[in-house]
Amino acid sequence: MLYQTIDILGTVAFAISGVLVAMEKRLDLFGVLIIAFVTSIGGGTLRDLLIGNTPVVWMRDLTYVTTIFITVVFAIIFVNQLKYLRKSLFLFDTIGIGLYTMLGVEKGLEAELLPIICIFLGTMTACFGGVIRDILCNEIPVIFRKEIYATACILGGASYFLFMALSLKESYAYIAAILVVITLRLMAVRFGISLPNIYKYRG
Amino acid sequence: MLYQTIDILGTVAFAISGVLVAMEKRLDLFGVLIIAFVTSIGGGTLRDLLIGNTPVVWMRDLTYVTTIFITVVFAIIFVNQLKYLRKSLFLFDTIGIGLYTMLGVEKGLEAELLPIICIFLGTMTACFGGVIRDILCNEIPVIFRKEIYATACILGGASYFLFMALSLKESYAYIAAILVVITLRLMAVRFGISLPNIYKYRG
Amino acid sequence: MLYQTIDILGTVAFAISGVLVAMEKRLDLFGVLIIAFVTSIGGGTLRDLLIGNTPVVWMRDLTYVTTIFITVVFAIIFVNQLKYLRKSLFLFDTIGIGLYTMLGVEKGLEAELLPIICIFLGTMTACFGGVIRDILCNEIPVIFRKEIYATACILGGASYFLFMALSLKESYAYIAAILVVITLRLMAVRFGISLPNIYKYRG
Repeated sequence: MLYQTIDILGTVAFAISGVLVAMEKRLDLFGVLIIAFVTSIGGGTLRDLLIGNTPVVWMRDLTYVTTIFITVVFAIIFVNQLKYLRKSLFLFDTIGIGLYTMLGVEKGLEAELLPIICIFLGTMTACFGGVIRDILCNEIPVIFRKEIYATACILGGASYFLFMALSLKESYAYIAAILVVITLRLMAVRFGISLPNIYKYRG
Repeated sequence: MLYQTIDILGTVAFAISGVLVAMEKRLDLFGVLIIAFVTSIGGGTLRDLLIGNTPVVWMRDLTYVTTIFITVVFAIIFVNQLKYLRKSLFLFDTIGIGLYTMLGVEKGLEAELLPIICIFLGTMTACFGGVIRDILCNEIPVIFRKEIYATACILGGASYFLFMALSLKESYAYIAAILVVITLRLMAVRFGISLPNIYKYRG
Repeated sequence: MLYQTIDILGTVAFAISGVLVAMEKRLDLFGVLIIAFVTSIGGGTLRDLLIGNTPVVWMRDLTYVTTIFITVVFAIIFVNQLKYLRKSLFLFDTIGIGLYTMLGVEKGLEAELLPIICIFLGTMTACFGGVIRDILCNEIPVIFRKEIYATACILGGASYFLFMALSLKESYAYIAAILVVITLRLMAVRFGISLPNIYKYRG
């Protein structure tokens, strides 16, 4: 129940972020819908394609499609009010990437893939919806340029395997890893932490 | 026979639209070929990937590859004459999206997916070749910005399920739905109908 | 042994080309990693998706992931020295596309696809990592605009089927086809050969 609520909140947050980017680009209604969709489910879809888990999940469970559709309608109507929700949205989004990361890790484990690939799949689930959104909007993906977004997912995914190696119970390790992602992201934004600058001593 | 003729006319029209966009971007021969290809078969390929229908259809039936190749050769040679065909091309393209929409809906039904997902797959089959073309040419996809293109596919796909619910014979419903797509698109262009403006009362 | 060494050299060369493009775009560490990755394994991944060969190969064999990761670390540290390696890099890259072309052709044959589709898959394996790299970096793919890169792969792939038709032993035909790709690419660069200009007599 809690799990599903969080999943839906994450989906909502991702969809809204898609709507905001799409409206900034002045896309039409159809464009806004597709971008919201892709931002929400693009990462999981790419993951399912790569591990051969088809038809992809949102084709078999309409919860996502319905949630995104309703979100887009409300987001377009109340777009001027959305700015007052900035903090809540950031929180949903952060919870969303935490949960999506572990969803992806879990799918990798089910497909009996190696830990490092599972971490990769988790990060992809959380981050690649945004990458596809940015490609469709003709931008260099934002997560390739700033913020410690993906890194939080990678470290959180890795922490799950660390917790398991320390014999933590699986459900605890799962939740702990989600909290690691959320904490890292919140701290990174709060303290302005970013990846080490690889251009420091160069032209 | 009629069905196949229309399918090939649609493929030709999509391929030509790819050639025109690619040549505007001054791509080389290889680039033009790939863009023509992707415009014609990109939507169906993405659909087949998402429902797990691999190897994708154009790998097993060379009709598409051959048709596209011949089209590209002729389109490059006669590019200056293509403008006189603008109306015919528009008609082929419109018939093409009608047919491609129902092809996609059919594939969804075969995979036992829900109606709304089938409609989505139909729209994807008709429209996403153009989306991939625009991404490869570094443009924001044109169907996200103007014209009621995708909407005609969505409504046409939906009409199929309406006709079926009204106990129409399946083959009639199929053809009627194709005509709905074509009619909507023609009317939209003729009367300058577009999606409701979601930016009206905003900055 | 030789085969594997060449495969790794190719992976290294592709990864370095990804790092160079990504750093030119001033991407952060994560972005550079992903672009290096995608340049190296994007073509093969797309090929495996299209023929339904999932989970894709780099998820099951960590050699690629490890090689790319180490390459990126070194490439970032020694980026200023990389210019002295320009000639070696070009050679690795050229050997890489030769090998990748035939790897792709082989996968197509295993999936019992027609020769022309196998040649297409070979070209995709060799060239589409670079295409995805350029899309992610918001550029029109370089192979669509200049150089006879893809054409060398197409002709090399076709030569394999020619050699087989001439009853050459399979392993010889395989190696000969790789050499055809390499030779064509070297000659094209050496003598400044490019595709025929399709814009000559037009506005």
